[in-house]
Amino acid sequence: MPELRKDPITGRWVIISSDRSKRPADFQDQRVKKRGGFCPFCAGNERTTPAETLAYRENGTANGPGWRLRVVPNKFPALQIEGDLNKQGEGLFDKMHGIGAHEVIIESPDHNATLASLPEKAMEEVLWAYRDRMEDLKKDSRFQYTLIFKNEGLTAGATLEHTHSQLIALPIVPIQVQNEMEGARRHFHHKERCIFCDIIRQEVQTGTRVILETAKFIALAPYAPRSPFETWILPKQHVSCYACATKEDYHDLAGLLQNILRRVDRALSYPPYNYVIHTSPFREEVNDFYHWHIEFMPKLTNVAGFEWGSGFYINPTPPEEAAQFLRDIRP
Amino acid sequence: MPELRKDPITGRWVIISSDRSKRPADFQDQRVKKRGGFCPFCAGNERTTPAETLAYRENGTANGPGWRLRVVPNKFPALQIEGDLNKQGEGLFDKMHGIGAHEVIIESPDHNATLASLPEKAMEEVLWAYRDRMEDLKKDSRFQYTLIFKNEGLTAGATLEHTHSQLIALPIVPIQVQNEMEGARRHFHHKERCIFCDIIRQEVQTGTRVILETAKFIALAPYAPRSPFETWILPKQHVSCYACATKEDYHDLAGLLQNILRRVDRALSYPPYNYVIHTSPFREEVNDFYHWHIEFMPKLTNVAGFEWGSGFYINPTPPEEAAQFLRDIRP
Repeated sequence: MPELRKDPITGRWVIISSDRSKRPADFQDQRVKKRGGFCPFCAGNERTTPAETLAYRENGTANGPGWRLRVVPNKFPALQIEGDLNKQGEGLFDKMHGIGAHEVIIESPDHNATLASLPEKAMEEVLWAYRDRMEDLKKDSRFQYTLIFKNEGLTAGATLEHTHSQLIALPIVPIQVQNEMEGARRHFHHKERCIFCDIIRQEVQTGTRVILETAKFIALAPYAPRSPFETWILPKQHVSCYACATKEDYHDLAGLLQNILRRVDRALSYPPYNYVIHTSPFREEVNDFYHWHIEFMPKLTNVAGFEWGSGFYINPTPPEEAAQFLRDIRP
Repeated sequence: MPELRKDPITGRWVIISSDRSKRPADFQDQRVKKRGGFCPFCAGNERTTPAETLAYRENGTANGPGWRLRVVPNKFPALQIEGDLNKQGEGLFDKMHGIGAHEVIIESPDHNATLASLPEKAMEEVLWAYRDRMEDLKKDSRFQYTLIFKNEGLTAGATLEHTHSQLIALPIVPIQVQNEMEGARRHFHHKERCIFCDIIRQEVQTGTRVILETAKFIALAPYAPRSPFETWILPKQHVSCYACATKEDYHDLAGLLQNILRRVDRALSYPPYNYVIHTSPFREEVNDFYHWHIEFMPKLTNVAGFEWGSGFYINPTPPEEAAQFLRDIRP
């Protein structure tokens, strides 16, 4: 019997169609491969990217080799960094200039590295780079949010195969985050508790959807996942914003995130994937009701149209089965 | 300069990145083709589908040949038709049995037909079949909504190439419709007017985003489209529900929808596409604030991951340009 399940934060329902349940082997046809060729993100090609906004380096000077991690503006940005917002109405409609930052976090100088295979120290630096850029962009009063995301593999939207993440700083809060904030605020209003903290508590008790726990973080398959093997990673204690996390948090998270990525790579044969960091908006960064987290989703199904028009997801893999697979596999 | 634009109904913002504007020729690589082979939807193969729930036929008997249009249950339904909802809580979580109808509207007995190339009378019957099934499913008190949608082409989610639409009757209202209803209700509360009626009035005045008008319907590129060539089709006068439309409406709509499909086929070389009908939920089918419509979207871009995690869309084709292309092309 299929099940209809409701995500308690956003109120979104999904169909878990366990009758035609899909297992990892059903999805193993999209392995991410490197094709090679000239790469602007490789060590030695620094001059082919816009000038860096951040770099962690052993030696050398800005925009030359010697770096371990580099952040540069996207050469083809979706938004423009210079200018004012110029908010305007057009009758019923609202618009503003497309002002924002669009940057690329080049996670390694090595073309053949993947996030899962980086040394743990390098993974930790990726997390620090996210934080450092967020903190810097927060100073720009035009921006309300910095969205960090990663596309791995062509079908997940990566146009360059050299391992990288992206950030977009925005003058507005993305609607998905707005919806989660509203749901979390409503819960807090009724209960005086963070809904994410409540979920973590219940999931730890139930156990069936927990994939992995460390001292400070938990990885779990959400109760109402939109797609097979969707995974959330959350700090176990309440922390409202990514940049509020501590040194120990980033260290712990680096290990857990790589552990999850390696499990997924093994279970699903190096699938394309996306992740996105959901954190509190700059203007209410520290609060009691919203809990920052990472939403990770391997790109296994291609069902955008119907889901897109309805907001309704049909997921052929129950999260309990996905969690079990990922728990049981050697990372 | 890219632009940030807000959809006035849902409050969703999109980035219109006109600097790297994409024209129809940039998208012409996904032509939908028929591959042939055994097809359960073809005339003569009626016994290979579940028994029909509706058919329009010249002659013959149920589940035999002689039909012009047939509706059958999906052989691999996402939801199960028999049973009760059995709504339950699991601590913080809510679930119910996955009860619902999942049916296929086979739009023609001819394997080589497409919706765009059907005789207009047959197109009209497709619209009547949507209505007849909605009216029938409404009698089932377990259901709150019937979602009609079409996937054309493999990458848009069609697993069978014989032209067909689908419907899913649901015990809950899809969140996308909920969000639109809320936005429309808010507008009505402030202004005592339907927001869709207001949009139509303004778009007709402005003209730049109007693609086509008939006596009763209008096709337009929405102000804040999520993807290139997204098109909305709406009745020009306020009508809250699809099944409330008149005989003249369906006749008029059939002509307009085919006209749009043919323009899109010409402009974008027979692209894969989806459309979905957004109508009022059964329990408040007749109301002053919500306006039923079709949302049509060619499947041209593959950027699901980031958009999925953020609700934020980057659209490389300004709707004014898309509307102009479709206006200027011979249908």
